[in-house]
Amino acid sequence: MAGNSIGQHFRVTTFGESHGKALGCIIDGCPPGLELSEADLQKDLDRRRPGTSRYTTARREPDEVEILGGVFEGQTTGTSIGLTIQNTDQRSKDYSEIMDKFRPGHADYTYHQKYGVRDYRGGGRSSARETAMRVAAGGIAKKYLKQEFGIEIRGYLSQMGDVTIDKVDWDEIENNPFFCPDVDKVDALDELIRDLKKQGDSIGAKLSVVATNVPVGLGEPIFDRLDADIAHALMGINAVKGVEIGDGFAVANQKGSEHRDEMTPQGFKSNHAGGILGGISSGQDIVASIALKPTSSITVPGETINRKGEATSLITKGRHDPCVGIRAVPIAEAMLAIVLMDHLLRHRGQNHNVQTETPKI
Amino acid sequence: MAGNSIGQHFRVTTFGESHGKALGCIIDGCPPGLELSEADLQKDLDRRRPGTSRYTTARREPDEVEILGGVFEGQTTGTSIGLTIQNTDQRSKDYSEIMDKFRPGHADYTYHQKYGVRDYRGGGRSSARETAMRVAAGGIAKKYLKQEFGIEIRGYLSQMGDVTIDKVDWDEIENNPFFCPDVDKVDALDELIRDLKKQGDSIGAKLSVVATNVPVGLGEPIFDRLDADIAHALMGINAVKGVEIGDGFAVANQKGSEHRDEMTPQGFKSNHAGGILGGISSGQDIVASIALKPTSSITVPGETINRKGEATSLITKGRHDPCVGIRAVPIAEAMLAIVLMDHLLRHRGQNHNVQTETPKI
Amino acid sequence: MAGNSIGQHFRVTTFGESHGKALGCIIDGCPPGLELSEADLQKDLDRRRPGTSRYTTARREPDEVEILGGVFEGQTTGTSIGLTIQNTDQRSKDYSEIMDKFRPGHADYTYHQKYGVRDYRGGGRSSARETAMRVAAGGIAKKYLKQEFGIEIRGYLSQMGDVTIDKVDWDEIENNPFFCPDVDKVDALDELIRDLKKQGDSIGAKLSVVATNVPVGLGEPIFDRLDADIAHALMGINAVKGVEIGDGFAVANQKGSEHRDEMTPQGFKSNHAGGILGGISSGQDIVASIALKPTSSITVPGETINRKGEATSLITKGRHDPCVGIRAVPIAEAMLAIVLMDHLLRHRGQNHNVQTETPKI
Amino acid sequence: MAGNSIGQHFRVTTFGESHGKALGCIIDGCPPGLELSEADLQKDLDRRRPGTSRYTTARREPDEVEILGGVFEGQTTGTSIGLTIQNTDQRSKDYSEIMDKFRPGHADYTYHQKYGVRDYRGGGRSSARETAMRVAAGGIAKKYLKQEFGIEIRGYLSQMGDVTIDKVDWDEIENNPFFCPDVDKVDALDELIRDLKKQGDSIGAKLSVVATNVPVGLGEPIFDRLDADIAHALMGINAVKGVEIGDGFAVANQKGSEHRDEMTPQGFKSNHAGGILGGISSGQDIVASIALKPTSSITVPGETINRKGEATSLITKGRHDPCVGIRAVPIAEAMLAIVLMDHLLRHRGQNHNVQTETPKI
Repeated sequence: MAGNSIGQHFRVTTFGESHGKALGCIIDGCPPGLELSEADLQKDLDRRRPGTSRYTTARREPDEVEILGGVFEGQTTGTSIGLTIQNTDQRSKDYSEIMDKFRPGHADYTYHQKYGVRDYRGGGRSSARETAMRVAAGGIAKKYLKQEFGIEIRGYLSQMGDVTIDKVDWDEIENNPFFCPDVDKVDALDELIRDLKKQGDSIGAKLSVVATNVPVGLGEPIFDRLDADIAHALMGINAVKGVEIGDGFAVANQKGSEHRDEMTPQGFKSNHAGGILGGISSGQDIVASIALKPTSSITVPGETINRKGEATSLITKGRHDPCVGIRAVPIAEAMLAIVLMDHLLRHRGQNHNVQTETPKI
Repeated sequence: MAGNSIGQHFRVTTFGESHGKALGCIIDGCPPGLELSEADLQKDLDRRRPGTSRYTTARREPDEVEILGGVFEGQTTGTSIGLTIQNTDQRSKDYSEIMDKFRPGHADYTYHQKYGVRDYRGGGRSSARETAMRVAAGGIAKKYLKQEFGIEIRGYLSQMGDVTIDKVDWDEIENNPFFCPDVDKVDALDELIRDLKKQGDSIGAKLSVVATNVPVGLGEPIFDRLDADIAHALMGINAVKGVEIGDGFAVANQKGSEHRDEMTPQGFKSNHAGGILGGISSGQDIVASIALKPTSSITVPGETINRKGEATSLITKGRHDPCVGIRAVPIAEAMLAIVLMDHLLRHRGQNHNVQTETPKI
Repeated sequence: MAGNSIGQHFRVTTFGESHGKALGCIIDGCPPGLELSEADLQKDLDRRRPGTSRYTTARREPDEVEILGGVFEGQTTGTSIGLTIQNTDQRSKDYSEIMDKFRPGHADYTYHQKYGVRDYRGGGRSSARETAMRVAAGGIAKKYLKQEFGIEIRGYLSQMGDVTIDKVDWDEIENNPFFCPDVDKVDALDELIRDLKKQGDSIGAKLSVVATNVPVGLGEPIFDRLDADIAHALMGINAVKGVEIGDGFAVANQKGSEHRDEMTPQGFKSNHAGGILGGISSGQDIVASIALKPTSSITVPGETINRKGEATSLITKGRHDPCVGIRAVPIAEAMLAIVLMDHLLRHRGQNHNVQTETPKI
Repeated sequence: MAGNSIGQHFRVTTFGESHGKALGCIIDGCPPGLELSEADLQKDLDRRRPGTSRYTTARREPDEVEILGGVFEGQTTGTSIGLTIQNTDQRSKDYSEIMDKFRPGHADYTYHQKYGVRDYRGGGRSSARETAMRVAAGGIAKKYLKQEFGIEIRGYLSQMGDVTIDKVDWDEIENNPFFCPDVDKVDALDELIRDLKKQGDSIGAKLSVVATNVPVGLGEPIFDRLDADIAHALMGINAVKGVEIGDGFAVANQKGSEHRDEMTPQGFKSNHAGGILGGISSGQDIVASIALKPTSSITVPGETINRKGEATSLITKGRHDPCVGIRAVPIAEAMLAIVLMDHLLRHRGQNHNVQTETPKI
């Protein structure tokens, strides 16, 4: 047990259920002297928040984060930082069905089997609502990485259903509700979502996250490699079923002469590796992708069993995204930021100084 | 730093370089009373060992593991277990080229930048030789899981280059040098390897690992989910660039009505999830896949730089697998075993008893 | 950094400063199914709370703990538990002196040197106010240990200044404001405190904590011994300068024939060891003692330096205990409970069952 | 379980039993570039080794440490370091008595109860022989601390039985077999040991360890305080029953005006605190003391039970120190070095630079 923490040197620990009193987290290991206010964290929380567009769930909560400790006169003090977000939208609702039946594709069955007891309201602890705290915690890491090292972390939608997106225009991403980096694909996405809403169904997605200006040397072989820790952090996001670094699964059909990134005095000639060699950052952009399954909260009826083990069926009513992948962009960014922050502090502890001059390409 | 350990309750820590005196590891947290001898571990070491066929490297080392502590009168005592494998094949060789030049696609550059100093002989610590200790440690986990819970962990090659393998005949896997589960694909693999040898090039691969008879309830949300820890362990294997659980990246184009595994009193109707829901094992087979990049140790010349940053080029002579993926099957099995063992002990600590009656399908 | 957590399987992480908005903590690893409400935790918080008698500081705060997550319908769910205590008594005060001068004997100087920035209000994070969260977290452990294993954890004052207390009447402890187990020493303590108040000075103390009904087998050699972890937890309490297990420092002048606890079929004949042999609980009572230094918050002027390094002097005004040791009894109980809880879950994970039949004496 | 590691950033993991094949350890997190050879570690191993004088046990083993990995061309590489010491003195002996009977005061009973199985030869894993690996690992920390920061760590005997030692002459310590810093007490110690040998009995001891030139700022509140981690490390040494920092238990009878260390522009005026304030090093000498119980391996018969729970008695024959405390001096130094090394790397990770200019007194 005790699985609600991530990171060793920059450690984030969370609590909170979908419909409990509040979500909260403690960030331990943030260096002192970082200017920090709620506003710094609110921006990404708003990007993640449901109800921001007609494409995501209609749940409307301000998701206002409050800093309860660890910051004094606008600066981090080096001690642990406490954050909470009150759950304001706990409307009393009839949970009798979800209480009794295991929603297929959800964590209801496994939580029930593991713990014997579960907070079934809106999925309780297994709800993606919990990721709000990750976004808040990641916001602290993002700010530190940007300010101290110029590291920037950004994500985008790279696939939804059969709509694949290859063109990446960083300036387009925040202009549409899909975090889509290709303006020409926005209409197709819009149509796909409309169709799914009509069908009462949902769709999976693929996202990419990229970190730029990462110093050489982050990552601790053998087991705490940077890529292994990124895989851990990204696979731990709700609904994620796959993680790739660099070329990912495409490497299964690549030749060595094609894959290896050759080097010149001017820098690497390509970045098939996704910025990590031997588990250590190479100074190139770190590139990771994740696949998110389609949510099982749909109105298409599904077979299942109840707590007595009897056959029954179920549809999920209420406010639900047809594509949960959309909202996961800021979550993936936050998780990558937490991992990089953790490794940066580890690396600096052992190696005195961090190389900030990074090779090209 | 201090990244050479994996697991919290069943913890494996390794040391050793490709051409150092010995490899070693300490396994901490193995329950007492398990019958254990070197022979139990040797079988998987032999499966991983180079030189077992003409398809893998010609390096010939017996890879004989020795148990130095933690076992008394043939049983584990509950204290830490010490293992070593002597490096017998340290023939003196000319390493001047690899000492001075960074092999593209290898960890030479990143180790040099991170540590300032590196054991360049055969890749030193970054060499896949180190995985021998993982296989030995995983062998202990495998034995315990099998004996106490009937859990079985097996892997196979599912793709090499453009040869994809869909038919899984568990009895075929050990009959060919590729861990290929489809007898009809063995000739194609053989031909692919021969061609690559002629070209002096290499190829990537995709492997799958499956654990059967896994109890319900393993995995600790939110961050120490079973899938997140599997991703961490598998991405940490040399050359791995992608990890999938269940349907993996295919979910990006699946609908909710298609992906969710419906339940009946007789069990789940499908296993798109790969045996994990909400980060907790569901009792179904755990299915994971990994992509391994083609090795960069090829005789096709590649551009690179030397330690002074000057342009140069390099070919890698000597004994090298055209497909390192082949030998990674026992490594992937070992890593999955270590993760399951770790989570089993965690789960049992908190929840008293472990459900061994698993649902069907 | 990242030092605000204790425990591995039952892990407590805290945040909060003396005069910040709130204190908070996350308890991760509490087994599911434990009945838990705020009232369970409030009792020990009230025992620790200042202002409960004229002998302790006049600061008056209700110290009301709130459970924000991890409990559903009155039971723990096995997920992380979030607690907060609002700081209601943040009266605006003049902190200019403490801001500029380092109080001798306090953490002002070391925090300043370590972090460069510090929350100086009331000592900020270094204030003993933080221990309220430890008491709350320990209350959860105490309840579980009592209910599941019959383990009871109690402490008492064993020395204050030159008043030493040898007679232990468990029924007397809660009858006086000193946690004194000998009714005949209460007057002497009362007089000592009055004298100190007149002098504007303070005094050290020694406390003892005892756990009864502890199962055999808790503790993980070599480094995570039960005694080592108890020492860690108790030395981590503010003002503690010494920790003893069993006979403690008296053993330096004991002979082997005198110290070793002989065994008979009816149980151990003595308990010099304090219930721990080879780092593992023996089933006897666990007995530990701690020494707490006199608080440096006194009105006797003291020499010090200011932030510029110039000589100055300082007296500490305001509400302060003449003996901080008094209030540390529930804190020491809480820390011992957290350690035992953590080890119990570890032991159970590895060893299937826990021996609850304990040997006598 | 998994308790055989200490440290997070500089982590030491050990294995090995008293009469097994070998002892071993892995040191993970040692910075790269440290010159290191076996000779660097052998000196302290020889100081700890039994058989070096007539005052300690007659067991004669060279205790030769071998570096198996992590060092290349005489320098640490930043990867994990593997060490082993072969057990050469495994003379076949009759262990039938110790196999069947629980030696009072030893870990026989608790190991048996915890694990169900135990290596009874010479105490197996619970034997102090295991501490050889701690001394070797600590030697690496000692060398780094000395070289990079000028930190020096030394210990001495401060009490044996009723012989207390107050005068500390650092030059005397290595001149006598007792690590006694007062030449005038050597005869009394010699006489005490002779008497005990005649009686077949043993005696306890008190040791002190001091670290000089420690930078300000080491230690991570709230739980990973420097003093808490020192207490953990020292209490984890075999036979230790008490740990003090600075004035230790004497503080129970000190006044605040007496205890607090006043500051002047020239430095602290005293060091009652033992160099740690609020869990963070103050730059003064770090001073810790430990009490070691008298060994229970004596020839005075003791009552006990056998594995069937029947009453019996036992004497311990063979080679045993009348005072195990003597040999613990290098062990205590090693443990303190490991803790300081760990905290130094943690601190540097978060705080960029470490203050090496330390205050006076």
